[in-house]
Amino acid sequence: MAALDYPPPLRRLIAQLKTLPGLGPRSAERMMLWLMHDAGRIEPLVDALADVTTRVHACDDCGFFIENGQECALCRNPKRQQRILCVVEQPSDVLRLERSGAFHGLYHVLGGKLSPLDNVTPEDLRIEPLLARVKSLHAEEVILAVGSDVEGEATAGYLNELLRAEGLSVTRLAQGLPAGGALDHVDELTLYQALQGRRKL
Amino acid sequence: MAALDYPPPLRRLIAQLKTLPGLGPRSAERMMLWLMHDAGRIEPLVDALADVTTRVHACDDCGFFIENGQECALCRNPKRQQRILCVVEQPSDVLRLERSGAFHGLYHVLGGKLSPLDNVTPEDLRIEPLLARVKSLHAEEVILAVGSDVEGEATAGYLNELLRAEGLSVTRLAQGLPAGGALDHVDELTLYQALQGRRKL
Repeated sequence: MAALDYPPPLRRLIAQLKTLPGLGPRSAERMMLWLMHDAGRIEPLVDALADVTTRVHACDDCGFFIENGQECALCRNPKRQQRILCVVEQPSDVLRLERSGAFHGLYHVLGGKLSPLDNVTPEDLRIEPLLARVKSLHAEEVILAVGSDVEGEATAGYLNELLRAEGLSVTRLAQGLPAGGALDHVDELTLYQALQGRRKL
Repeated sequence: MAALDYPPPLRRLIAQLKTLPGLGPRSAERMMLWLMHDAGRIEPLVDALADVTTRVHACDDCGFFIENGQECALCRNPKRQQRILCVVEQPSDVLRLERSGAFHGLYHVLGGKLSPLDNVTPEDLRIEPLLARVKSLHAEEVILAVGSDVEGEATAGYLNELLRAEGLSVTRLAQGLPAGGALDHVDELTLYQALQGRRKL
C-alpha cells in the first residue's frame, strides 16, 4: 500500500507556497491547511493576485508601481526636483524614504543588490536604465540609498565608479547612531562610522 | 499632496496575504514585492490555488482530503479496522499518525480544538458527525489523539464525556519522554506524566 499523502493538487499548492520568501515546508503546509479549512478563503486571495497582474505595472523610469492607465506619481510630478536621483534597492524603500519627508527628488529602483552568492550580477539590476536616465535628466547628484550590508556596500562601490565616470556628484546615506539609540545598543562598526562622520555643532 | 503609497490593487494583495497564518504586515509586504519582482511568479500560484478549489474536497466521513472523482483512501479501505476511530484536530495529524505506522483504524478530523478565547465552540468542530459515525460504525474504541496543550485537554475532556455516555472505550495518547530525549531537556509536567504513566518491563 502506498504511503498516504495529500492529493496531488494540494501537494502542488504546498510546493508553490514554499517558493514564497520566508516560508519553509511546515509553514507552507500550515498555510495550505488554513486555506482549505474554509471554502471562502481561497477566492479572495486568487482575486487579489489576479488583480495585480492586470491592474498594476512598474514605471519604466523609476521602477515604482503604477496603476494601469495612470501616470507615475513620482516621475510625472513637476514639483519634484528633477536633477537629484535617489537609487534604492526595492520599491518599499521608496515608501520609507518618502515617509521620512527628507527627499524631494526622483527615485530609481534597482530591483535588488549585487550578490555573487545569489547569482545577482549587474545585468540583473536596472543599472543600464539608471545610466541612461542620469544622462537624459542631466542629473547633478545621485544618492546611493542602498543598505549598509556587504552586498549594499558592493553595489554602492560598483555604481559609484560608473557614475563618477559620468562626472556626477555621488553621495551615500550617512551611517551612525539610530534616532533614540543609546550607545550601549550600538555595534562597534556603527560607532566607528558615527565617529568618522561626526559633525560640528 | 497625498502621502505616497502602493496602488490600491497592491494594498489589497498585502491585506489578503496578511490574513494568512503567521504573516504580519512586514512579511506580507515582502511577499508582495517578491511576487511583483518577476512577471512569472504570480501565475503558477494562482493556478495552484484555483486547482485545489476545483479538484479537491474533504471526505464527508473522516474529513481528510480526497481528489474529486476518487474514493477516500482511508474510509473506503476494507483492510483498515472499522471499529476503532482516531480523533485528530487537523488533516496533517492524519499524515503524521499514518507515518508512525502504529494505527490501522479509521480517522476523524475535528477541524480544530475547543478554544473559548478564539471563539471556537463545539458547534464549530465536527463533533455531531463524530457521534453519528461512532453509532453507524458500531465503534468499540475512540482514541482522542488531540494535542496535550490546554485547548487539546479541554477538547479531550469534552469528547470523553459525550462518548462515554455512548458506552464506548475512550483512550488518549500516552504522555511521556519523547523518543531520544534526555531527562534534562524535558519539562517538569512531562516528567510528572511520564512517571504517572510508567510501565512494568
